[in-house]
Amino acid sequence: MKEIEEKVLKDGIVLNDDILKVDSFLNHQIDVLTLREFARGVKEFLHGQKVDQVLTIETSGIAVAYAVAEELGDVPILFAKKSKSKIVDENVYRGEVVSFTRGIRSEITVSKKYLKPNTNVLIVDDFLASGNAGLALIDLANQAGAKVIGMTAVIEKLFQGGRERIEALGVPVFAGASIKAFLNDKPVF
Amino acid sequence: MKEIEEKVLKDGIVLNDDILKVDSFLNHQIDVLTLREFARGVKEFLHGQKVDQVLTIETSGIAVAYAVAEELGDVPILFAKKSKSKIVDENVYRGEVVSFTRGIRSEITVSKKYLKPNTNVLIVDDFLASGNAGLALIDLANQAGAKVIGMTAVIEKLFQGGRERIEALGVPVFAGASIKAFLNDKPVF
Repeated sequence: MKEIEEKVLKDGIVLNDDILKVDSFLNHQIDVLTLREFARGVKEFLHGQKVDQVLTIETSGIAVAYAVAEELGDVPILFAKKSKSKIVDENVYRGEVVSFTRGIRSEITVSKKYLKPNTNVLIVDDFLASGNAGLALIDLANQAGAKVIGMTAVIEKLFQGGRERIEALGVPVFAGASIKAFLNDKPVF
Repeated sequence: MKEIEEKVLKDGIVLNDDILKVDSFLNHQIDVLTLREFARGVKEFLHGQKVDQVLTIETSGIAVAYAVAEELGDVPILFAKKSKSKIVDENVYRGEVVSFTRGIRSEITVSKKYLKPNTNVLIVDDFLASGNAGLALIDLANQAGAKVIGMTAVIEKLFQGGRERIEALGVPVFAGASIKAFLNDKPVF
């Protein structure tokens, strides 16, 4: 999307070959207009498919999920929690995410009460990079018997392989801005 | 607000004398309609005062902040991060929150870039209980020289003292539903 690419060019800061800092509008300060623009793109991408739930992961996915849920007609949002406790809880589905930027393994959970079989789930996040968070969310949805109808992110870094890994599972991917590379400290779309 | 009270009565679960579980619509699954209703109440409470920024704290405050920021005309959102690192970073303001439910002390930070002097800041959160999170956010705003024009929460538990502590600082408080007590496992407003 032209508008998201322009925002990324204007306000994103390339820190190194892997990391784009967007804390001025996406994951610390949040710009409602950018998220609403992205949400419009998600709606088009879906071509009228019914969405029963927008699934995301704390923290930075939540505002994005709100914008998308609202655009799709106020569907419920569910955010997976990064769990710290090793207490066995029979009432949750569990998945594992490896953070690309920090290499830390963490467990995520959602309550079985809120993720249901035979529902259409749309996954939403701020970034799609290696795809680890998306794959963990797809895993949670699969455990519940829900159908993942798409994985969407405001920004994707194509060179980190996430899109390929997710499309290989038959899940369509949409991003507001797709970065092919960083060149002279600027993203190239 | 009648609508929020009804939602709390219908879907909230009183776990014990202190804790109301609202993960079906507020802090795990999220109901957009409830948050938008709350945001309308916040707008009325403000009587047209200008808001430059909506300030909240991760995680559960973020969706609430989005709803309020949108209702107030797409003002920027800023969420304080729960910091784990003890690395000294000169570019952030730091505050301390003691969790009422778990007794854990944690540090929160916001980037100095995004919290500015002589701005009107509105604080938003899911719950107001003991007021510790709100007080820490007010402290961050004070460090930046910003003016806190209100503290708002979807649900407050009046018997845990948060409102008094925050009003004592001269900050007006608004809640979507104000719980006086739990009686027979039901909230009383």
